[in-house]
Amino acid sequence: MPSQFDPPSGTRDFLAADFERREHAFAIFRSVFTRYGFEPLQTPAFERVDVLLGKYGAESDKLVFKILRRGEHEASGEADLALRYDMTVPLARVAAAYGSQLPTPYKRYAMGLVWRADRPGKDRFREFVQCDLDTLGSQSLLADAETLNAQHDALAELGLPDFTVQLNSRRVLAGLLEVFGIRPDLGAGVLTSLDKLDKLPADQVVAELVGRGLPAEQSGELVTTLTAPDAVERVRVALTKTDEGSAGLDEVDTVLSLLSGQVPAGRVVFTPRMVRGLSYYTGPIWEVVAPGVAGSIGSGGRYDHLIEQLGGPDVPATGASLGVERILALLPEADAEHQRRLDVAVTVMRPDLAAQSFSLASTARKAGLRASVYLGSSSKLGRQLKWASDSGARWAVIYGDQEHETGVATVRDMDSGEQVQVPAADLGEFLARAALTNS
Amino acid sequence: MPSQFDPPSGTRDFLAADFERREHAFAIFRSVFTRYGFEPLQTPAFERVDVLLGKYGAESDKLVFKILRRGEHEASGEADLALRYDMTVPLARVAAAYGSQLPTPYKRYAMGLVWRADRPGKDRFREFVQCDLDTLGSQSLLADAETLNAQHDALAELGLPDFTVQLNSRRVLAGLLEVFGIRPDLGAGVLTSLDKLDKLPADQVVAELVGRGLPAEQSGELVTTLTAPDAVERVRVALTKTDEGSAGLDEVDTVLSLLSGQVPAGRVVFTPRMVRGLSYYTGPIWEVVAPGVAGSIGSGGRYDHLIEQLGGPDVPATGASLGVERILALLPEADAEHQRRLDVAVTVMRPDLAAQSFSLASTARKAGLRASVYLGSSSKLGRQLKWASDSGARWAVIYGDQEHETGVATVRDMDSGEQVQVPAADLGEFLARAALTNS
Repeated sequence: MPSQFDPPSGTRDFLAADFERREHAFAIFRSVFTRYGFEPLQTPAFERVDVLLGKYGAESDKLVFKILRRGEHEASGEADLALRYDMTVPLARVAAAYGSQLPTPYKRYAMGLVWRADRPGKDRFREFVQCDLDTLGSQSLLADAETLNAQHDALAELGLPDFTVQLNSRRVLAGLLEVFGIRPDLGAGVLTSLDKLDKLPADQVVAELVGRGLPAEQSGELVTTLTAPDAVERVRVALTKTDEGSAGLDEVDTVLSLLSGQVPAGRVVFTPRMVRGLSYYTGPIWEVVAPGVAGSIGSGGRYDHLIEQLGGPDVPATGASLGVERILALLPEADAEHQRRLDVAVTVMRPDLAAQSFSLASTARKAGLRASVYLGSSSKLGRQLKWASDSGARWAVIYGDQEHETGVATVRDMDSGEQVQVPAADLGEFLARAALTNS
Repeated sequence: MPSQFDPPSGTRDFLAADFERREHAFAIFRSVFTRYGFEPLQTPAFERVDVLLGKYGAESDKLVFKILRRGEHEASGEADLALRYDMTVPLARVAAAYGSQLPTPYKRYAMGLVWRADRPGKDRFREFVQCDLDTLGSQSLLADAETLNAQHDALAELGLPDFTVQLNSRRVLAGLLEVFGIRPDLGAGVLTSLDKLDKLPADQVVAELVGRGLPAEQSGELVTTLTAPDAVERVRVALTKTDEGSAGLDEVDTVLSLLSGQVPAGRVVFTPRMVRGLSYYTGPIWEVVAPGVAGSIGSGGRYDHLIEQLGGPDVPATGASLGVERILALLPEADAEHQRRLDVAVTVMRPDLAAQSFSLASTARKAGLRASVYLGSSSKLGRQLKWASDSGARWAVIYGDQEHETGVATVRDMDSGEQVQVPAADLGEFLARAALTNS
């Protein structure tokens, strides 16, 4: 039941264990992208409404969080700013704003929050991380292959057990429509229906095509070609009959050949029936799928005119996006229970010995360990050791009357309960060595 | 002149060099806080308006960015959400929401964007990073000292050349007011005036005190005591005359003594005239100042009742905040010009050799280097080497006709222009070794 202290609907608080789990994935992504020469870009959380609205149509505009004007204008009820909806509109603005300051090609990644006023649901949030990598200013298929390769490596280094990249090309699809003699005005609708072949039975898709005005025979033939066990071979043969189809096939084969030595065999698969929902793609397109996940965990493709349509310069572009929230859902859950917040927990047995305890904690930190003194009010050792245990500390350092008299610190191994006395001056060295052998 | 492509007023785009420079500082902060056992917390960018508004008074409420309701409610012009204004209100909500799930004490840091509809100016933004560390649930002065120590270490590890922590206590101030016999109803106003002693001449502050209703003699005596060369000694003597003053002095001396071995001598200085503007502090207070910076670059203090006032549980608390934007302004500027985006730039001399070039780039990446193939359309070596140079690459790897025939890659040192031929199969090893000797 939602309480007044819950975060707003569709958003989440990330306490330490979840935060660290997410950061671990983000750090891997950043590291892979950097290795490919993609550089980071961070734009503001909000843009002016005119920059953001009207870019992806009315349905998307409804999902935009708008910010009320301020001061005397607040009463107008008007919005002048809006929260970032994706990473591509800001990229188009940045490309327009900093043109000559940016390298050519401009390879950038953007990883950050976006906000959508969607109905919240399982793995669907109103605030979530989007992670894009894009290359602006290259027409080369090497750029598409490189983007796909980087996206692949990000997932592989994250340790995702099993995933497949379905590769296709918009030109393959255009060639197919041509080969099957489909009227140009039906093209977009036909592709929308074909995109459902992985979810709906073949005959339902045929019925939908017929409903769209495609003759029954043509509809059946098209669906049969795309769903046959030897669909890829059939499509390959068909495509060679038109220039557009041949060109599309070349795109797919070039990308496959570039990647062949770089990714495991069978990881990237030519999938002619794969249609990316969005209409702005112009060349290679791909989706990353994983067993047990409905929909994709990543996608990408070439979109040579979109940046201009979004208000940026006219540059060819290709890019990929990771479905971060879905990917994170595939990884083991964070274990908040057994989280180690500290390596070394230092007791404070007497107020007048607090400075020594404080200093011992500092010594442990200088040895590269996470350390803290006891901040509670009890002077009982049992209570303080309970705190050490709750913190997940590997060692408790006890400094009381006896230790003070003899100039030592007692180091207690929190797992075994074994205790040794170490000269206070040697504590740092002792802990550093123990950490090496114990880690 | 602002253009339609600029980010919204008061916000910034961070291209690679700036982004990396900021991230470098954030990574140091995170690392220091973690070493002290502070754990991360991330809350949503927005909160419900009722959580956010009315917490710091009407002036602050005006600075809150409010988010318009959506769908059919949009026309109402009402807001139901608002962008995070600081990190403390969300902390209070989290403390209320997750109480027993959180460790005791709860030591957390939060580093992220906050938004304020302030008038933009030099180093004053509408979107900026706030970085707080707080300990909830400890009454111990060890917690205050630990927080201050962590904040200090964060600045020191960042390499900030020179800074001082001015330390005081609210109880010292209360004791002073008592010693000087100042009427309780004038107390808050008197402190507000005294807080200006570092900006205004002493006689102006005296005049202000008189204006507040304090007798002229009392005003003069108070200001003289606080501005005399031996102010600290005078105040120490005065404070011993009351219980509250003695208790305040004890707080200051305890924190000073805990920190004495941990920070350089003279770094933390008892500063009796230092009054933190905000009225919610209840114990030790401090400000971090640096030469040439107006105002503080960090601050902190104990605020035992604020979390409850903000809607959270009744817990003692102490915390510190880093003035991230001011601190970043003190560090050397990012050098976008000489940024190294790549270690290895691989040429693509012929389309039919592209797969080999692609593979050589992959080899360089596996050796831990940042590498990319040329994505442009020129087949001229000169153009491709210009790209390699613009990318800041340390090496260009050339793979053309000749290299293909003899099974080698030519590695060009981009600084010296020297070229060596390396068997293609040995490139990874060669580059890894070169990187070690060249870094």
